[in-house]
Amino acid sequence: MSLGEFDLIRRHFDRPVQRQPLGVGDDCALLAPAPGQQLAVSTDLLVEGRHFLSTVAPQALGHKALAVNLSDLAACGAEPMAYTLSLALPRVDDAWLAAFASGLHALADAHAIELVGGDTTAGPLTVGITVMGQVPPGQALLRSGARPGDALWVSGWPGRARLWLEAVRGTLRLEGASFEAGRLAMEYPQPRVSLGLALRGVASSAIDLSDGLIGDLGHVLERSGAARGFDRPLGAEIDAQRLPRHPALSGLPARTVLRCLLAGGDDYELLFTAPPSREAAVHEAARQAGVAVHAIGRITEPSGVVVRDGDGVRLSGHWSSYDHFRSEGGAQP
Amino acid sequence: MSLGEFDLIRRHFDRPVQRQPLGVGDDCALLAPAPGQQLAVSTDLLVEGRHFLSTVAPQALGHKALAVNLSDLAACGAEPMAYTLSLALPRVDDAWLAAFASGLHALADAHAIELVGGDTTAGPLTVGITVMGQVPPGQALLRSGARPGDALWVSGWPGRARLWLEAVRGTLRLEGASFEAGRLAMEYPQPRVSLGLALRGVASSAIDLSDGLIGDLGHVLERSGAARGFDRPLGAEIDAQRLPRHPALSGLPARTVLRCLLAGGDDYELLFTAPPSREAAVHEAARQAGVAVHAIGRITEPSGVVVRDGDGVRLSGHWSSYDHFRSEGGAQP
Repeated sequence: MSLGEFDLIRRHFDRPVQRQPLGVGDDCALLAPAPGQQLAVSTDLLVEGRHFLSTVAPQALGHKALAVNLSDLAACGAEPMAYTLSLALPRVDDAWLAAFASGLHALADAHAIELVGGDTTAGPLTVGITVMGQVPPGQALLRSGARPGDALWVSGWPGRARLWLEAVRGTLRLEGASFEAGRLAMEYPQPRVSLGLALRGVASSAIDLSDGLIGDLGHVLERSGAARGFDRPLGAEIDAQRLPRHPALSGLPARTVLRCLLAGGDDYELLFTAPPSREAAVHEAARQAGVAVHAIGRITEPSGVVVRDGDGVRLSGHWSSYDHFRSEGGAQP
Repeated sequence: MSLGEFDLIRRHFDRPVQRQPLGVGDDCALLAPAPGQQLAVSTDLLVEGRHFLSTVAPQALGHKALAVNLSDLAACGAEPMAYTLSLALPRVDDAWLAAFASGLHALADAHAIELVGGDTTAGPLTVGITVMGQVPPGQALLRSGARPGDALWVSGWPGRARLWLEAVRGTLRLEGASFEAGRLAMEYPQPRVSLGLALRGVASSAIDLSDGLIGDLGHVLERSGAARGFDRPLGAEIDAQRLPRHPALSGLPARTVLRCLLAGGDDYELLFTAPPSREAAVHEAARQAGVAVHAIGRITEPSGVVVRDGDGVRLSGHWSSYDHFRSEGGAQP
């Protein structure tokens, strides 16, 4: 029997599992969670022209497809275990597959997780990943745990991916170093898994930033409001001066910077809340994880989301979140 | 805020979980496997024009997308727990979504499992499902467990889906009742979950029939050969007279019938092996599950796959399996 195209594809992805009982090649994979742990599961589907441009390097695509899923585990404080890959390919291109797989495997190895199953078919380029992690019962970080009075925190340096996208679209110009910083942020986001684990028992709620800070904050406020018995979402006040600004965002109009920070999308940082009394514990968790964190505001009773500048003046604006069905904010076909 | 398209979509899929700790709406779902159980995971990606025709009823598509995944759990002897859904949609069509969701929910309810997470985006119509089940350590049915001398069994009535496909293509004509039987087999396959559970401790190996009996048997022979220390796949002898024939296949040329039975694809029956001494236990498992089973041959030392007619005469033929990258056997774009 000649080496078929499926075999070609499988050569890039079939690696024997070391940590789980059974990997690729049977009807199911078998995973062995640690005794008593709950299983955390997240899934994402990336479509060409929508979540990535056709010009993206396949290695970056492999990285990002897994990174956005690991970011969901991070936001739950779950420890990654394994993932499955579904791939629709318009053609079988060995060099493309090798590069895609290398990006995928490198990030998987960095987080000590294994590809345990998948499905490949012909079709428009589509990458679907489902990731599984474990977390002790009651310790998962949920969107619903924020309370009025909690401090609002964000990890790392949001806004760079959006900055890069604006430059690619030609709506602003960037120097070489800033463009490169933006490209790296867009193509190689680093999921904050260690931070999520360190924030167990410290943060009251968490979400990862995929659709823009204000939009994702809205999910936390909505679910936390419902969980607290309010018939409306909780409110929040954001101090614009305290939003962390990466050097790539310097020298740009204030309005542009604020838009990148608050409605950027594709940040894959953690947005989380914690009681003010846990400030030192938050800093210790960040130190353990080796990730910068910044307190950017606070949660309030239901009263909407307010963004204030350094003098406490309320900034108006439509900080809309990224909606894949709208024409703004995304890579369109 | 107006009801956006995402909300429209979510209305069809967000149902509160009853059995698992956390469902749709957070960064991750949370599952609680029974203490000490392993987790069985399988994933499938269905692409329009490849795995289903654009004319398929959305209710049938919802059913089948989940059924093919449940069939993988069945082949492992795992008890279904939960699933995630990834959906790329070219447009948001409320009636389509309602019908699709009803097909999905009906099958999920029949197997007491819940939709715990997902992702929706604009894109070419694509349905990705990952299903999770549980199985006690060491009890999963694997492809690698067949031994020379084992009897080879198949559940139900394979061949009908391929028969229907041939009729749709115009390569043969079917009466109304046979056409309808074929359409039901293709669009509403019934995953043999109960049978898989009942075969724990009875079957030595199992696989579900998705790509044709001979092709899928090949996977069992290959992995079982390697597991037994052979450098080639195990062999098998199939008694063509003992292949179960659904009434829809009657009155057709013998060659056509054999092709539907051996290289059909889309059967979602279980093909399994068991030592001859376990024949009564196999029948008892089938009785418990309410599914017909037939012994159709036996596993041999490595010597290829032989199909014999009633007089023991070897039938020649190329019983190729279904390859999504080839032009034969599938619904092509």
